[in-house]
Amino acid sequence: MMQFTIRQQDRQTKGRLGQLRTARAVIDTPAFMPVGSLGPVKGLEPEDLHDLGFRLMLNNAYHLYLRPGHKVVAELGGLHAFTGWPGAILTDSGGFQIFSLAKLCKITDEGVTFQSHIDGSTHFITPETAIEIEEALGADIIMAFDQCVALPASRAAILEGVQRTTAWAKRCQASRRRNDQALFGIVQGGLEADLRRISAQELVALDFEGYAIGGLSVGESKADMYAMLDVTAPELPEAKPRYLMGVGLPEDLIEGVARGVDLFDCVVPSRHGRTGWLFTSFGRVSIKQAQYKQDERPIDPDCGCSVCKRYSRAYLHHLFNVKEMLGARLNTIHNLWYFADLMQRVRSSIERGTFLTMREEFYRARAEAERV
Amino acid sequence: MMQFTIRQQDRQTKGRLGQLRTARAVIDTPAFMPVGSLGPVKGLEPEDLHDLGFRLMLNNAYHLYLRPGHKVVAELGGLHAFTGWPGAILTDSGGFQIFSLAKLCKITDEGVTFQSHIDGSTHFITPETAIEIEEALGADIIMAFDQCVALPASRAAILEGVQRTTAWAKRCQASRRRNDQALFGIVQGGLEADLRRISAQELVALDFEGYAIGGLSVGESKADMYAMLDVTAPELPEAKPRYLMGVGLPEDLIEGVARGVDLFDCVVPSRHGRTGWLFTSFGRVSIKQAQYKQDERPIDPDCGCSVCKRYSRAYLHHLFNVKEMLGARLNTIHNLWYFADLMQRVRSSIERGTFLTMREEFYRARAEAERV
Ligand SMILES: [Zn+2]
Ligand SMILES: [Zn+2]
Repeated sequence: MMQFTIRQQDRQTKGRLGQLRTARAVIDTPAFMPVGSLGPVKGLEPEDLHDLGFRLMLNNAYHLYLRPGHKVVAELGGLHAFTGWPGAILTDSGGFQIFSLAKLCKITDEGVTFQSHIDGSTHFITPETAIEIEEALGADIIMAFDQCVALPASRAAILEGVQRTTAWAKRCQASRRRNDQALFGIVQGGLEADLRRISAQELVALDFEGYAIGGLSVGESKADMYAMLDVTAPELPEAKPRYLMGVGLPEDLIEGVARGVDLFDCVVPSRHGRTGWLFTSFGRVSIKQAQYKQDERPIDPDCGCSVCKRYSRAYLHHLFNVKEMLGARLNTIHNLWYFADLMQRVRSSIERGTFLTMREEFYRARAEAERV
Repeated sequence: MMQFTIRQQDRQTKGRLGQLRTARAVIDTPAFMPVGSLGPVKGLEPEDLHDLGFRLMLNNAYHLYLRPGHKVVAELGGLHAFTGWPGAILTDSGGFQIFSLAKLCKITDEGVTFQSHIDGSTHFITPETAIEIEEALGADIIMAFDQCVALPASRAAILEGVQRTTAWAKRCQASRRRNDQALFGIVQGGLEADLRRISAQELVALDFEGYAIGGLSVGESKADMYAMLDVTAPELPEAKPRYLMGVGLPEDLIEGVARGVDLFDCVVPSRHGRTGWLFTSFGRVSIKQAQYKQDERPIDPDCGCSVCKRYSRAYLHHLFNVKEMLGARLNTIHNLWYFADLMQRVRSSIERGTFLTMREEFYRARAEAERV
């Protein structure tokens, strides 16, 4: 089972240093989770993630339900045995993917009917089947099945989503058969502050083992996203982990931590890596630019990753240019190292009481690089 | 510079155990070279190849000449610095790729005019520019620029190819500026035994540091290929390394060794890996077959590779099925391990005087697997 302890509360922000323990791993928080939609983070082995310092990763229930199927994974011993990942795993419930990827979604109070984005086959998922799928996959932490309303939406539609999310959350709890997984509820409410509060309060009353903030980073402004965090986080119990889903960029992680978030996940480091975008201490770099063709320097001279130790910008430019899959792998390793290191710096700054200074320096370094 | 010593001659076949030394590596022969056309073996880092036991790999001058350009590689310190590969490198001269990949080839005694298969741009390569390119790339072993005649071809066309290959070989030698690379000549002659002999004799008279047998494994029968090896190898000096270019399948390596070949290269392990074909002690397996969907066993229970230690057929089937690039990487690692292990078994059987038995067992295991 999961344990969460707050080791230190930042005095100047809502940031907190914590530790999450599952049967398989100890995760220092705030932490970023890399995303392996179909099992692996694209191009990486479990050993690579472990070497980068990650102890908790995310797998997508929706993708694994479609292929190879949750029953196949269960028969093969669950996700850990299937993928070879020795650390902890969190599975999302599939709700977000169904609403964003699948075709012809039809939502009723009972559940969601949708067509697979792979082969068009029709599927019906309820809170009960979502839990059945996540229990079969066997992650350490599983997410309740929620309704994520696409924005912009009417207040009535958002309210309906909140009410359904609460009703479904109860059904998720009621349908559990395993007691060795932690179940998190997901706060919805779009950009409506009072609906966010209501959603959080209703879920807190159900006493989940952790709480996620969903339905953000879906196109709204950063100011809107941060405002929703400001409203939602204080409603959540201090002693339980808070997870901001699908977020995000480095500045979003820092702002999320400042508002009391403990966990993040995002495809940004791997997807950006595959498209040639590299995160550095001086901002984002597009390795496909011609200026790097003969650049012997590492991506970021201040980076301690295995890629920056071994390869030049020129080589990574070449690999991207000729579409060598090794390029995607190396870019992803560098980006994930950046994210792991950023969270490490966040944690040690909270520990030393210098988180606000760290945040200022982060923005200053970026602003200086942009002036150059 | 390169040194080659024969450590042991097999008594029952023409097989020989040798050692090739370059400034960067000691290579036990017979050896298989993995192919990194554009730098890396697709999806693999230098460390992966090294862990698999390889100390010599091949890079394609044609591909690297087009992208990023040999001058760019030279300015970045040569192929070793560019790719991070610490072992020895052999570059082919580009001849074979020009004749097989490029468009609108026009061959004169002077050289070859062709259009890039990438962007259609026109290029003119002569023996002199081929050596200039290979010296800029900076491999340990470089190949003379030859004319590989596509089969079937008239005897007259094959003879012309042989004569031009000899003339070009002389020009390659004359245009060298570096003295720290070994230069190999390439025997041509199609499937004409007497022309193969003439080509070999003419090149041997030029005293190269090693000899390659080119223009084979281009669609002819195995019997024809082996017959040409039977004819060609005895013409080559005992004390120099012999390299059978672009070959091949496991049985071709064994048959090549039995006929006195020391070096092989082929894209088969990596290309087959990407298309889901895996080499095992019981023959080739297509991981995409539905029968592997829930198969918990490793690819080959007798394989000692890191993939077979960690992953099931079911997981590799899944990765292939969902087109995860990790699948290509893992399949390639397994296949290269098989090739490295096969050559290791070949070498130790020569050392123990049991090469013929090893060859018989190889065919027997395959035949047994096919009967099942
Ligand atoms: Zn780096
Ligand atoms: Zn294996």
